[in-house]
Amino acid sequence: MKKVIVFATLRESILDPQGVAVKGGLAQLGFTGVEEVRIGKRIELLVTDETTDMMVREMCERLLVNPVMEDYEFSIEEVASV
Amino acid sequence: MKKVIVFATLRESILDPQGVAVKGGLAQLGFTGVEEVRIGKRIELLVTDETTDMMVREMCERLLVNPVMEDYEFSIEEVASV
Repeated sequence: MKKVIVFATLRESILDPQGVAVKGGLAQLGFTGVEEVRIGKRIELLVTDETTDMMVREMCERLLVNPVMEDYEFSIEEVASV
Repeated sequence: MKKVIVFATLRESILDPQGVAVKGGLAQLGFTGVEEVRIGKRIELLVTDETTDMMVREMCERLLVNPVMEDYEFSIEEVASV
């Protein structure tokens, strides 16, 4: 098995309203030293050994990530079979 | 400035319905080699240099993370001021 970790984050140029809301929430709790918050996804997939980088890239672009609004990167590591 | 990256993921023992849905979606697209999908958050904060580990931990536990259902970890790195 392989473990794939995908990080999808909104592109820099796109406003992150969820992040803005969290920043406001932190400020209300007294955490005034927070300049910016951006919220992204961390998707962990457990896949068979036959799964290639190409296939992961295709999964990202067809389903996991919105390529218009998000950037993504992923890493693949071998996992000892259970 | 410092950049803080927080990863929050559902605890292993808790069902991740969003992950199950994504796994189903991938299977429908023909990606049958996916055994499990778990979806978490990646929260990036830009904070002032005065912000301590303690403060980040408190932000996590009071707002960013649901400590009942989620595990979290974070890293802090120095960022050159712009």
